[in-house]
Amino acid sequence: MDVNGVHYKTIWMDAENENVIKIIDQRELPHKFVVEELKSADDMIAAIKDMHLRGAGLIGAAGGYGMYLSLMDNNINDLVELTDKLIVDGLKLKATRPTAINLEYAVNRQLEIIKRCKNREDLRVFLKKEALKIAEEDELACKEIGRNGYKIIEEISKKKNGETVNILTHCNAGWLAFVDNGTAMAPIYEAADKGIKIHVWVDETRPRNQGARLTAWELLNQKIPHTIITDNAGGHLMQHGLVDIVIVGSDRTTYTGDVANKIGTYLKALAAKANDVPFYAALPSSTFDWNIGNGVKDIPIEQRDGDEVKYIQGFENGKVTNVLLTPMESNTANYAFDVTPSKYVTGLITEKGICAANEESIRMLFSK
Amino acid sequence: MDVNGVHYKTIWMDAENENVIKIIDQRELPHKFVVEELKSADDMIAAIKDMHLRGAGLIGAAGGYGMYLSLMDNNINDLVELTDKLIVDGLKLKATRPTAINLEYAVNRQLEIIKRCKNREDLRVFLKKEALKIAEEDELACKEIGRNGYKIIEEISKKKNGETVNILTHCNAGWLAFVDNGTAMAPIYEAADKGIKIHVWVDETRPRNQGARLTAWELLNQKIPHTIITDNAGGHLMQHGLVDIVIVGSDRTTYTGDVANKIGTYLKALAAKANDVPFYAALPSSTFDWNIGNGVKDIPIEQRDGDEVKYIQGFENGKVTNVLLTPMESNTANYAFDVTPSKYVTGLITEKGICAANEESIRMLFSK
Repeated sequence: MDVNGVHYKTIWMDAENENVIKIIDQRELPHKFVVEELKSADDMIAAIKDMHLRGAGLIGAAGGYGMYLSLMDNNINDLVELTDKLIVDGLKLKATRPTAINLEYAVNRQLEIIKRCKNREDLRVFLKKEALKIAEEDELACKEIGRNGYKIIEEISKKKNGETVNILTHCNAGWLAFVDNGTAMAPIYEAADKGIKIHVWVDETRPRNQGARLTAWELLNQKIPHTIITDNAGGHLMQHGLVDIVIVGSDRTTYTGDVANKIGTYLKALAAKANDVPFYAALPSSTFDWNIGNGVKDIPIEQRDGDEVKYIQGFENGKVTNVLLTPMESNTANYAFDVTPSKYVTGLITEKGICAANEESIRMLFSK
Repeated sequence: MDVNGVHYKTIWMDAENENVIKIIDQRELPHKFVVEELKSADDMIAAIKDMHLRGAGLIGAAGGYGMYLSLMDNNINDLVELTDKLIVDGLKLKATRPTAINLEYAVNRQLEIIKRCKNREDLRVFLKKEALKIAEEDELACKEIGRNGYKIIEEISKKKNGETVNILTHCNAGWLAFVDNGTAMAPIYEAADKGIKIHVWVDETRPRNQGARLTAWELLNQKIPHTIITDNAGGHLMQHGLVDIVIVGSDRTTYTGDVANKIGTYLKALAAKANDVPFYAALPSSTFDWNIGNGVKDIPIEQRDGDEVKYIQGFENGKVTNVLLTPMESNTANYAFDVTPSKYVTGLITEKGICAANEESIRMLFSK
């Protein structure tokens, strides 16, 4: 996607120095656009943990590149010693964020590669290749998700005789959450490209405001009409017919159709159901968890530092700053994700097509 | 209630100068505790509009005192001219906040008084008396709401064999929203007083964070265990059995049981229903609207300045400050209230007792 007219991905290998992975440091967006250089697995681990980058697909790609950096940041030649280091860094990478399955998936792919390598040069060639492949697959899957999801928006537009289609989204499942294109946002970008009249309600998405900071910034760059609302507002909007469709991303979706996504998604799904608004989750295959049947019970939910609730980042006098929101002595809790049971999900938009949120439909789509 | 051990109400007539109404200016809480002097109807109008004070009951009391100040801030002796001024100020006061019915109710009571007064001295005596009475009624009603609502919490505590009762509340329907005691918070204070083990989940309540700023500050002063959460978190908590009861306030409740309250209340009610968590609204009689049957359709919903979404107030380096949260160019919308249909409301806690959220039960309670 474009930033001030220049095309960017969220993560890429430096063209001049293959020891360096570059990322957009998303922490100060939309106020400041910063590109950061990562040179080691530890750099990548810190970048994921402290959310320089975030989003299901992007932390997957970051996991792949992180394993490659784990190799490139040392000069160990002994294969056993080297493999040990890679395995330990893989564990560390996987432990940074527990909810999104993409990270685990990407690191596991690299761990499989490692098993088949016989020397340092092998590792360099194949870890690099696999990291690039993971990123590319993410990018292409998102493009396909856009094409598939577009059809749903087009259908609504037709039903409304070309009147503006109002889409509500929560958090950021845009190109900043993936390598490019995004998931929930991909059908929106596709629809805008094709000239469909759309307007996006952007949930600010406390505590880290990925909606207000990132999704809004993406939409501004793409010149798509949008309105930022508090996370509290969506129910009222749906009750009053002001939302035609909800599209969100997912950090992990069970093979039974339960959708883990940013905290608060579940509340929007309940409101959508109560007001007959279609509710879709958009996700690449890599986000499916084929081992968990009961998402509410078994998907691990990350609890982040309560200071993310206590303080908020904003912009004042030309600089990004953190301000205290609560009494200093009050306790805070910070659940980062929730799980929307499949019965509230109208459908899943994947790169392979659209299916209903139940085991039969999901298995049928993936058996094609 | 107490602030650092000193008893305060939220609004009172200055003991030394009856031309002055004093209020707690809530804007900089919890960071700064400020008492403000109001000397004219215009002062009161600005205080309501800019939310130096807020909350259904408190803006009712403020309406009563505002009419009294309208009289005290001038020297007009001609009764017709004076009455005209009072009526105009009454209209201005009522127009400050459209959703809470208490304000309209209080100003209308003063307008009735005015009709019966024959001279300036009559007006002084009777507007003062009525303003004090409106405030006192609010305070006493809240105390009764506490006693009635306490029984529900006590019942849950018994069922849990004395284990901690987890109560979720949205926004601030505490003593800061009324003259004293509060509505949703009154049963909580009563339960704490009686030694019931409780813990309160406090929704931060964007955009103005009355939960994180005011409810948390009240609970700290009352030494009641509490945890501030984002507005997004409540659904997840209910899904996982971490909430025993939801209690909220109301800015207007129809005679059919539809509850208007701070934006986002509806989403919590949906989650409560989906997870079999009892959901109560606590409100004094003055909050009932006997003319509206369909709350979703007919209760006017205030839309406030979008800058309340775009910026947030916090505390940094010893001072209260506003920071920008979004891209400067993005559009924002700011619906201040929503309406929870009666079918999601387990019951209404009033000073007259508890009833189900339907016309028959409400009318029966009020016919006693």
